[in-house]
Amino acid sequence: MSPPLSQPSPTPDTLTPLRLKRVAIDTYRENVAYLHRECAIYRAEGFQALSKVEVRANGRRILATLNVVDDACIVGPDELGLSEDAFAQIGVPSEHPATVSQAEPPTSISALHRKIAGERLTHADYQAIVRDIVDHRYSKIELTAFVVATNQGELDREEVYDLTAAMAGVGRRLDWKAHPVVDKHCIGGIPGNRTSMLVVPIVAAHGMLCPKTSSRAITSPAGTADTMEVLANVEPPFERLQEIVHTHRGCLAWGGTSELSPADDVLISVERPLSIDSPGQMVASILSKKVAAGSTHLLLDIPVGPTAKVRTVPEAQRLRKLFEFVSRRMGLTIDVVITDGRQPIGYGIGPVLEARDVMRVLRNDPRAPHDLRQKSLRLAGRMLEFDPDVRGGEGYAIARDILESGRALERMQAIIEAQGARAFDPEHPDLAPLTFEVTAPQDGMVTGIDNLHLARIARLAGAPKVQGAGVDLLHKLGDTVKAGDTLYRVHAAFPTDLGFARQACERTSGFMLGSPADLTDLHVEF
Amino acid sequence: MSPPLSQPSPTPDTLTPLRLKRVAIDTYRENVAYLHRECAIYRAEGFQALSKVEVRANGRRILATLNVVDDACIVGPDELGLSEDAFAQIGVPSEHPATVSQAEPPTSISALHRKIAGERLTHADYQAIVRDIVDHRYSKIELTAFVVATNQGELDREEVYDLTAAMAGVGRRLDWKAHPVVDKHCIGGIPGNRTSMLVVPIVAAHGMLCPKTSSRAITSPAGTADTMEVLANVEPPFERLQEIVHTHRGCLAWGGTSELSPADDVLISVERPLSIDSPGQMVASILSKKVAAGSTHLLLDIPVGPTAKVRTVPEAQRLRKLFEFVSRRMGLTIDVVITDGRQPIGYGIGPVLEARDVMRVLRNDPRAPHDLRQKSLRLAGRMLEFDPDVRGGEGYAIARDILESGRALERMQAIIEAQGARAFDPEHPDLAPLTFEVTAPQDGMVTGIDNLHLARIARLAGAPKVQGAGVDLLHKLGDTVKAGDTLYRVHAAFPTDLGFARQACERTSGFMLGSPADLTDLHVEF
Repeated sequence: MSPPLSQPSPTPDTLTPLRLKRVAIDTYRENVAYLHRECAIYRAEGFQALSKVEVRANGRRILATLNVVDDACIVGPDELGLSEDAFAQIGVPSEHPATVSQAEPPTSISALHRKIAGERLTHADYQAIVRDIVDHRYSKIELTAFVVATNQGELDREEVYDLTAAMAGVGRRLDWKAHPVVDKHCIGGIPGNRTSMLVVPIVAAHGMLCPKTSSRAITSPAGTADTMEVLANVEPPFERLQEIVHTHRGCLAWGGTSELSPADDVLISVERPLSIDSPGQMVASILSKKVAAGSTHLLLDIPVGPTAKVRTVPEAQRLRKLFEFVSRRMGLTIDVVITDGRQPIGYGIGPVLEARDVMRVLRNDPRAPHDLRQKSLRLAGRMLEFDPDVRGGEGYAIARDILESGRALERMQAIIEAQGARAFDPEHPDLAPLTFEVTAPQDGMVTGIDNLHLARIARLAGAPKVQGAGVDLLHKLGDTVKAGDTLYRVHAAFPTDLGFARQACERTSGFMLGSPADLTDLHVEF
Repeated sequence: MSPPLSQPSPTPDTLTPLRLKRVAIDTYRENVAYLHRECAIYRAEGFQALSKVEVRANGRRILATLNVVDDACIVGPDELGLSEDAFAQIGVPSEHPATVSQAEPPTSISALHRKIAGERLTHADYQAIVRDIVDHRYSKIELTAFVVATNQGELDREEVYDLTAAMAGVGRRLDWKAHPVVDKHCIGGIPGNRTSMLVVPIVAAHGMLCPKTSSRAITSPAGTADTMEVLANVEPPFERLQEIVHTHRGCLAWGGTSELSPADDVLISVERPLSIDSPGQMVASILSKKVAAGSTHLLLDIPVGPTAKVRTVPEAQRLRKLFEFVSRRMGLTIDVVITDGRQPIGYGIGPVLEARDVMRVLRNDPRAPHDLRQKSLRLAGRMLEFDPDVRGGEGYAIARDILESGRALERMQAIIEAQGARAFDPEHPDLAPLTFEVTAPQDGMVTGIDNLHLARIARLAGAPKVQGAGVDLLHKLGDTVKAGDTLYRVHAAFPTDLGFARQACERTSGFMLGSPADLTDLHVEF
């Protein structure tokens, strides 16, 4: 109810400088400063362990959480220790003089309190909050408070726009000097859903500029960047990436969010452990990055299914409206498609297995997964229709022609070469050697496949860290199987991993077997 | 939207034990485990910095946040380092073998997610959450998420009861083998409000059992425990405290929340930095502690004023109803009084200054602050009426008689002696030597005094850490002053502190001067 009492930080001249020391402790995103308990300034200032302090050296300043040390081998009484990240941020050598003082509370803290109290915030409030977040002025506690207070239902659509605009405003912004600059994005949650690796070469082959950046896996067994990494280097220097995009009209690289959406990069550090992914935050996170990446047109894929992120079509429709509203305000052309998310896409789950599926589609190999091919062609078709010269409805046929003629494969190979090819033989993919199979307990039709459980099994098996690990599905929804038929095969590199994966499979296979009547249809576009 | 993927922690026998090492780093409430980057188990398990790990040694297990170390002087590749708190918790000697594994997510996490999503939780949910919190199974991020998700408006009164019952259920519970066991509590926010130190001796002198435990200052310049500490030891061993209470019918000791309400002790570690103090959390925190402390009757003081925690009388009424509802469900008799919180109570703000005021009231000294005396008598009167033999309305007269007859002073001196007297001369209180005065800029009547600002000045001056530091008010609401008259005097022990306090006073004195018409009356009980 009453606001916090802010401690003014004393002026530098009131402070005795300490000698800076790099403390070789990796505290991830959190800056930690280490002061010896006998340090004069510590005693004078009455710091507390976990107080937020401001460290100044050579004109630079960073904020850090204070840990108090009683071991001179870590820091001495006249030293100021910084965790590795913090030390890198302040960017001065060891032994350099530095001062430390109580950190002023971030100016946007009052806005945060109003949000916690359930009030509506203004455009200016979000600008201030995002600015403070990017400057690392928020503690983990304050970040979490912001994420939870702006969660589900707490933000109206105007606020979602304000947050998106603020997040897009603080990062670097790319300009491809072209129009349209097209991009596609899936809200995620569906294992094996590697359509970008097919859509990009098709759209690029058509001549549209499609500089696709993707994320690595966060809680999934593989992100597009992880799978592409099986085939090529996904982190070429930015200048090189620009050349590639201008030469080949497309790329498939790792996003490196930290530059394009630094606020998102910080927020994710608390959203991830809480697995909070509310509509407002999802929209702000995705659209701020797309705008910062210089996209003018976005095709957004919202998969729906009982084990997808979005469980029902009405929920997907609400999310679609929110994406449309904010995109319009951001000046971004968006086309939202609601797709079938009842099961994984393709056969493979895990980087190498997914790369195999993708290459089979590009090579028009009869063993290519039908669903991955169809979905990719449909998405590519919709994207092609961003081209004013393509008539509505013609996209799909053009996309199919580009794929079947081999021009998509050609373009993909060019992009792979340009980014830096990795040795990969789709005929003999380098799968993790240890395996076991999960079989059907009785005859029946596959009427359900649990995305979450299969993703979990693939992760326990070692994906994405172990590229060749994961799950290879032998059957999909609608298939009829006999008792003893193999439903899927698990690949792992280490016995421990294989053991964890087997434990998970023993609890439940993730497959539901039943009669055709149990296979409920989902009324989505595709 | 989708739940987090839980990693099963491997069984101990799959783990190579490490040698335990105490790392002399004070991380406050947060357990931190330090593993060397080259540690085999670290590489095998694929831990991440900041992952939650479970450390097992000698049958004990604790949870900790992982920091990764690159300096063998902190921990070697075959060692497992623990921060001081964590090392103490696991309670085995250095070098003792220990194992570390990914921590299972707390079982109540799904309930936390439902609350974050805005759902209502059940009695069982709150039991599970509070249990996990007390077991330190929640990370700072999860704790914050719980506190924010249960903030303002998010809890209905049944849920507040469920949370209170859960919090009262996990701690130790005192039984005074007496009835009634009376207590008083103020929700706080008013500097100098030391009524407990007058109410307790009066009520105890009347013969009611009043084992008062109080907190130390958190964000205020002094808590009752800090002020009492000027006069006596406030931390006698518990057995001694029981003797004192049975002999003298009362005590004024430090609460040591960690035993009586361990959940509150953990929650406060995030509520404090966020200065979140929502009605539901306030009620649960206060009532769970009172019930655990064995009180049967509680007098609750809710001060109202423009700079108090509660700003309006209607807000106070709502809070009162919530306290009454939950107390009834907890089987605690409560009497809530809404009081005048427009200005500090008494003259002194800071431990020694407040102790001086209290002793002057007890000694019936003409210099005693009138408002402190009156409020204490009224509160004591209401408490005395918890005694079935006292007729409604008679309490005040009885309290005044006990005070004026000197029996209150006598009882206070007995309690001070019993707890362990400290040298204190009310005629010559040991005030911090450095001072400056803040004077009236023009003639006028004092029409407003900012509680928050004066509390802040007293803190900057060094209170409560420096017992003799603080603010001494020379004028109160309704006083007429001339330009140049001293409004208040600031005491500090150190030049830096004095400087901070002066800076704050230069921004604004915290006093409003105006005409009698500006002095708005507040319609409260007293």
